Amino acid sequence: MSEHWVGVDVGGTKVLAVRIDEAGDVEATATRPMPGRAAGAEAVEEAVALAARDVYGARPPRALGVSAAGLVDADGERFLFGAHLPWRDTPLRRRLAERTGRPVVVDNDANCAAHAELLAGAARGVRSALLITIGTGIGGAVVLDGRVVRGAHGLAGEFGHVQVVPDGLACECGLRGCWEQYCSGRALERVTRVALGRHLDGPEVTALALAGDEVALQSFASIGTWLGVGAAGLVSAFDPELVVVGGGVSAVGDLLLGPARTAMRGSLQGTAYRPVPELVPARLGPEAGAIGAALLARDGRS
Amino acid sequence: MSEHWVGVDVGGTKVLAVRIDEAGDVEATATRPMPGRAAGAEAVEEAVALAARDVYGARPPRALGVSAAGLVDADGERFLFGAHLPWRDTPLRRRLAERTGRPVVVDNDANCAAHAELLAGAARGVRSALLITIGTGIGGAVVLDGRVVRGAHGLAGEFGHVQVVPDGLACECGLRGCWEQYCSGRALERVTRVALGRHLDGPEVTALALAGDEVALQSFASIGTWLGVGAAGLVSAFDPELVVVGGGVSAVGDLLLGPARTAMRGSLQGTAYRPVPELVPARLGPEAGAIGAALLARDGRS
Repeated sequence: MSEHWVGVDVGGTKVLAVRIDEAGDVEATATRPMPGRAAGAEAVEEAVALAARDVYGARPPRALGVSAAGLVDADGERFLFGAHLPWRDTPLRRRLAERTGRPVVVDNDANCAAHAELLAGAARGVRSALLITIGTGIGGAVVLDGRVVRGAHGLAGEFGHVQVVPDGLACECGLRGCWEQYCSGRALERVTRVALGRHLDGPEVTALALAGDEVALQSFASIGTWLGVGAAGLVSAFDPELVVVGGGVSAVGDLLLGPARTAMRGSLQGTAYRPVPELVPARLGPEAGAIGAALLARDGRS
Repeated sequence: MSEHWVGVDVGGTKVLAVRIDEAGDVEATATRPMPGRAAGAEAVEEAVALAARDVYGARPPRALGVSAAGLVDADGERFLFGAHLPWRDTPLRRRLAERTGRPVVVDNDANCAAHAELLAGAARGVRSALLITIGTGIGGAVVLDGRVVRGAHGLAGEFGHVQVVPDGLACECGLRGCWEQYCSGRALERVTRVALGRHLDGPEVTALALAGDEVALQSFASIGTWLGVGAAGLVSAFDPELVVVGGGVSAVGDLLLGPARTAMRGSLQGTAYRPVPELVPARLGPEAGAIGAALLARDGRS
């Protein structure tokens, strides 16, 4: 009988599980609501286990991969800190392995998505790339020499909390002016609320934008411009071949990426004299994190 | 007879040459004024050749390394763009080899300084580090796995033109709000001029600060704080073991690095849960670029 693996992505608003086969193809998906940071670690761990079980099928997977938005230590044992998640220096791998009775691999959500995009998505065959995932917040990953760079302590690619506005908007992480305050699902909702005078959630703003609504288009132009400005800074620092943009908010496509491309080019020095990398959508969509977690469970965490 | 090599660093205000022996020790140094961007390419190339000749000693060096502030292409043939330098997509390596009659190696100034600090300075034995050089502007280099990372097109580490203030101060590169407008020798002079109502150059501000002058100390605190804020963003992105700060402005030591350390820690998310890298002075001082260029001439450009 063929083997399978399960990947679970723990985001700010939902817990998404996928099951993949030996070839990496997705066989099943399931979604559970994210109980939220305030619900505490136990509740979120139970949601992870339940979402995973939703896609087990006839029998448990060989191993389980978990993708989570925040700082994971270099060997994947501990979840150190995430603004939207309840864990603080928690031995998450062991806790989830005990709860599920399966071998577990834990990694940062953007590292998982980058692994998936590298193996099977927009960055296939690329030697150096940046991955920027826009969901509730911003995640990031760096690919150099065809591999995800972990950094000295496993924390490379934490782009969301780079300051882009001095004394700017307060962030859940405790700082001010973080990039994800200006470019994220929450930023999209805030910008829209300010313009409309009432609250719409991200999918509602996306639907309006796709229908041509001016306010919604303007909201995407705002966060897209901030995407491009921030991406330009990262391009100056890393000089990648390619910038890949994923995460739920990127599902709107060029309504976000068009303004981002314009702003990225406009915020890079010497563009008449230097190559400007392409900025392209992630190919695996909002499931990239979960798929990458499952692939890491299959391949082992490098 | 023993061999020697010459390195020349072309900065915004001066051209500095050093001669090294086979062990990498400095045997002679010389300085010429930088004619300035407006003087044109020929004039600056002549200054490079003259500064080099000042340290030839009894006979020409085996090879010449040139360190310059700006974008150098991946194979070190062309100088693409630098805000303070006259060259635009210029085949600089060939031109200088023809002018001097010696084999020439060209690299970005911060890459040169990083090479020197890695081999013989503050980053000796370190696997991952960021080098930030503060002179007329800001240069940068990234070390991963014990080697200087070049990026897809040889342009990695261009930190100076990352935007830190939206719609901020106009920069010579044509953009606004670039980091080096807030943290550089020119920023030091501007901040001091605003406070004092008259112009002092960088070395004068440094002398005053070392003598305890309040205005000068405040100027260094300002650019040091911006150093820390920008460094925090880079630490979030790269997660290095160490941040090394070099360049002429860093000669003032802790008067700059103290405020930078405070601001870096204050601008990093989750510092209660993550390691914060040390921020240390470069060990080779303002000559690091020239020494690194000479070492690259000796070792070959990787």
